[in-house]
Amino acid sequence: MCVIGLGLIGGSLMRAAKAAGREVFGYNRSLDGVEAARADGFDATADLDEALSRASASGALIVLAVPMPALPLMLRHVRAVAPACALTDVTSVKGAVLDAVAEAGLLDRFVGGHPMTGTAYSGWSAGDERLFVDTPWVLSVDDHVDPDVWARVMRLALDCGAFVVPARSDEHDTAAATISHLPHLLAEALAATAGEVPLAFALAAGSFRDGTRVAGTAPDLVRAMCEANAAQVVPVLDQALRLLTDARNRLAQHQPVADLVETGHAARIRYDSFSRPQIVAVTIGSEGWRDELAAAGRAGGVIRSALPVRGSRG
Amino acid sequence: MCVIGLGLIGGSLMRAAKAAGREVFGYNRSLDGVEAARADGFDATADLDEALSRASASGALIVLAVPMPALPLMLRHVRAVAPACALTDVTSVKGAVLDAVAEAGLLDRFVGGHPMTGTAYSGWSAGDERLFVDTPWVLSVDDHVDPDVWARVMRLALDCGAFVVPARSDEHDTAAATISHLPHLLAEALAATAGEVPLAFALAAGSFRDGTRVAGTAPDLVRAMCEANAAQVVPVLDQALRLLTDARNRLAQHQPVADLVETGHAARIRYDSFSRPQIVAVTIGSEGWRDELAAAGRAGGVIRSALPVRGSRG
Repeated sequence: MCVIGLGLIGGSLMRAAKAAGREVFGYNRSLDGVEAARADGFDATADLDEALSRASASGALIVLAVPMPALPLMLRHVRAVAPACALTDVTSVKGAVLDAVAEAGLLDRFVGGHPMTGTAYSGWSAGDERLFVDTPWVLSVDDHVDPDVWARVMRLALDCGAFVVPARSDEHDTAAATISHLPHLLAEALAATAGEVPLAFALAAGSFRDGTRVAGTAPDLVRAMCEANAAQVVPVLDQALRLLTDARNRLAQHQPVADLVETGHAARIRYDSFSRPQIVAVTIGSEGWRDELAAAGRAGGVIRSALPVRGSRG
Repeated sequence: MCVIGLGLIGGSLMRAAKAAGREVFGYNRSLDGVEAARADGFDATADLDEALSRASASGALIVLAVPMPALPLMLRHVRAVAPACALTDVTSVKGAVLDAVAEAGLLDRFVGGHPMTGTAYSGWSAGDERLFVDTPWVLSVDDHVDPDVWARVMRLALDCGAFVVPARSDEHDTAAATISHLPHLLAEALAATAGEVPLAFALAAGSFRDGTRVAGTAPDLVRAMCEANAAQVVPVLDQALRLLTDARNRLAQHQPVADLVETGHAARIRYDSFSRPQIVAVTIGSEGWRDELAAAGRAGGVIRSALPVRGSRG
């Protein structure tokens, strides 16, 4: 397999795949990253077309592990040099990637992915072969996805120690807006509000510390996530604003805020007891397999060992 | 000293004060709590007027450790039985308590307090003599406070292992609204919003878990905190709503959300490096001591060892 971009995620993926016994080579734009990877015993180059030619010749799975803004350029190279290779990505927003892939004419061989893991650090040196262990790795089950490519990416995720959450790209993006981008915006608003109140930091304790933890994330990353997924963030932010505005009006009128507090508490309790049943009864490539997987993923289902593929030898 | 109410805070206070070598007795409404305290070797009664008579006879410091709704009734008993005793409380909202104390005609001997600690549990059995160790204990420095009563309550807090944050009641309540009540409302709104989005719980990770942690708090407690401090919660909630609505409108117009994200990040970074200089140079009872302490507390200052009192023997 061929990893394009050897930062935190790509570099961790290269390590994890090699540790799982896979043959893996990669490309990185900066020579520093390439040299660091080579010094650690990995097969890396700063020549993109060399890496893609080799992927094309060996029929390697190509993993795009570059930031969203770099993606269209990489896709044009893939289209020119390795158009027949199976293709996946590790970007946190799936709809925009899908559009870029379609634009590049590579939809047939593409299955979007999102390993939901990370650290506050970046670059090759931040990588860790265990970064994916026991973390969710979303694989898109959009209408176009090819069963064989899907199965290949699934096996990669499982080899890295992740469990696979099947999801449609649009549903992924709305859920990500809700459970990642919205919490970031709320944390920023809480920190910014407290920053203007004398005595606030002096009295701050657990609820403030937890509620603002992700405001410590680098602003560029937060902006990139939220701005790239704006179409999905706006409706869930609107819903949160409706709930908070209603509570605000009730408090201003000395009325109880039982609705918000009880609904929020009940949701958090449901989340605490949310189970992750293993998906075992779906055959990839069978009639309706994509819808079955999307429904199972929606219900919390995860893939922890490789599902069978219709018509395959295994 | 005399502790009125032997729940989590009152019960912990009784234990901590005794461990510090103080003579302490207490009252609890329910006989179960009284018997549990007695079984643990503490001096407790279910007869309020008996406890207050004893406090009055011995000049004990009375600590009101009952929930806000029970406070006016307790204050009427104190007024009737032990009006000359020094008086403090451990309630999380200080303005409303101050009003109730003024209403009962007990302002002269009262210094409001708020030990900023707790657990998710309640009742005598949940108590812990170390609950206050290295936690902030706010003491009000409102214009009326008496230096000797203030010093007595300060020494109690220090004996329990807490450090003292001096603050005006109104500033405390605005800060508490910002760093405690607002985070609770945001957490409830986040949990409630996610509860309606398919796939949200399936993808939820650290930012959602941290952002909704306090939504796991019992709804009655969250309501009691927010509703009792509504007048302070509304303006800080309005400020958060303004910031979030602005971000929402920018996202809807494909504009950057740099303002919110950078302000929030900068505030969180300031919070991370917020220091707590020790207050040493103030003499309680000297000219302007209340304003000096309020200013020092606002700047993060804390009292870790007893300040001198003007004209006192120590």
